[in-house]
Amino acid sequence: MYLRYMIKVVLIGDGNVAVHLAKAFSKSSFIQFLQRFSRNNKNDPYFNNSIPKTNIIAHIVKADIYVIAISDDSINQFSKDLNFTHGLVVHTSGSMPLSALQCNSNKGVLYPLQTFSKEQSLDFKNIPIAIEAENEPDYNLLEKLANNLSQFTYRIDTDQRKKLHVAAVFANNFSNHMFQIAEEICHENNFSFSILKPLILETANKIGNLSPEIAQTGPAKRNDQKVIKNHLDQLKNNQKEIYKLVTESIIKKYNS
Amino acid sequence: MYLRYMIKVVLIGDGNVAVHLAKAFSKSSFIQFLQRFSRNNKNDPYFNNSIPKTNIIAHIVKADIYVIAISDDSINQFSKDLNFTHGLVVHTSGSMPLSALQCNSNKGVLYPLQTFSKEQSLDFKNIPIAIEAENEPDYNLLEKLANNLSQFTYRIDTDQRKKLHVAAVFANNFSNHMFQIAEEICHENNFSFSILKPLILETANKIGNLSPEIAQTGPAKRNDQKVIKNHLDQLKNNQKEIYKLVTESIIKKYNS
Repeated sequence: MYLRYMIKVVLIGDGNVAVHLAKAFSKSSFIQFLQRFSRNNKNDPYFNNSIPKTNIIAHIVKADIYVIAISDDSINQFSKDLNFTHGLVVHTSGSMPLSALQCNSNKGVLYPLQTFSKEQSLDFKNIPIAIEAENEPDYNLLEKLANNLSQFTYRIDTDQRKKLHVAAVFANNFSNHMFQIAEEICHENNFSFSILKPLILETANKIGNLSPEIAQTGPAKRNDQKVIKNHLDQLKNNQKEIYKLVTESIIKKYNS
Repeated sequence: MYLRYMIKVVLIGDGNVAVHLAKAFSKSSFIQFLQRFSRNNKNDPYFNNSIPKTNIIAHIVKADIYVIAISDDSINQFSKDLNFTHGLVVHTSGSMPLSALQCNSNKGVLYPLQTFSKEQSLDFKNIPIAIEAENEPDYNLLEKLANNLSQFTYRIDTDQRKKLHVAAVFANNFSNHMFQIAEEICHENNFSFSILKPLILETANKIGNLSPEIAQTGPAKRNDQKVIKNHLDQLKNNQKEIYKLVTESIIKKYNS
């Protein structure tokens, strides 16, 4: 009986996001993972090879949803090459508008908000998914797919998704760069970066209960100019510039 | 028999660090937590009130180690006021040199590297402790105390500790500010910051296995000028300045 309601899915791509989506599709008993398209026709150990694969667009089979997980720059051209009109075609990019899709089918976006590496295993159930579609029936179908993948789904339109992507750059890319500078300072001074790892974990854990606005601590928050000057004296180049600017930003936030 | 080897400790202070140290002292069966000194003589629900307390320096009892967990600016004067010569007096500050202690007793530093809030419970066993002392016997005693509190102890001198403190500012204060800007962007655009929490947790978790240098992803790492320009167009004021500077720093790191 369930089979009547299974969502038939084709996945396009072989990158980090595609690897994790493929695993999640295979796991769900409400998703019929029909086929995977990859330009590259090699066997990839990160994919379950029991799923039929093609590298020819004309051989793509009929499905309810086509999920395009390829690089941002390729979405436009690839979607133009799809010459069918049925089904719902969605991309998975945080920074591309829905209109990046240039196919004749209906269009949507399914953006899983996480940092993906092929090697790092993740529980897709905990990954927030932002979805958008052109009309309600498509939205409902996409929401059904998203709910089968994750417990956290959000309706986010193209404009909001653009902002969300910027926010994610701060939350992930930029905080990671702060960790990287911290590691640099450790190595320059001959001590192990491991000493900072519990602090980093706790910094993120704290955000589970406290707003980052409340969780903020340190010399900039206290506007402790003595410690700030002392720190600046120890830094140079980009480390110093970033220290200065971020400290000014924190001081402004808490002391004005 | 064990009693002969228990380390007698007096704790000075009533702030965030003192609260967590007091809990850890009380838990250890190798530490005899003799007394707590606090200028403020009120009952504090964050402390176990079965530990004798005083607010008079002359009433401080004889111990092996005096642990001063008070604000950086007060360490100098408070240690001058200690008029005994026995025992080992240590402060717990990341940014103050050993020489900030001006007492007649032997001196040392026990710096627990974590972000402490009274409300947030922590397992002290997982908190790295950086220790320093003027001579080997004191170092050995302090190491014994530290090993009773935590599984991670490090020998770090004043110069290294200064650098460690700067590194910790990047790892904790600055990454938290990145989270705070991300939250700001979410609220400015009417979506919940919760959508970013799994990403933030994973950003920190990743560092357990991967160096932040390897874990870096995003438009700056790829030097994707189209996305960068698009993001900059959406930002203003300090958000924009920080985006620009951190992006430049990442581009320089990976593309030069």
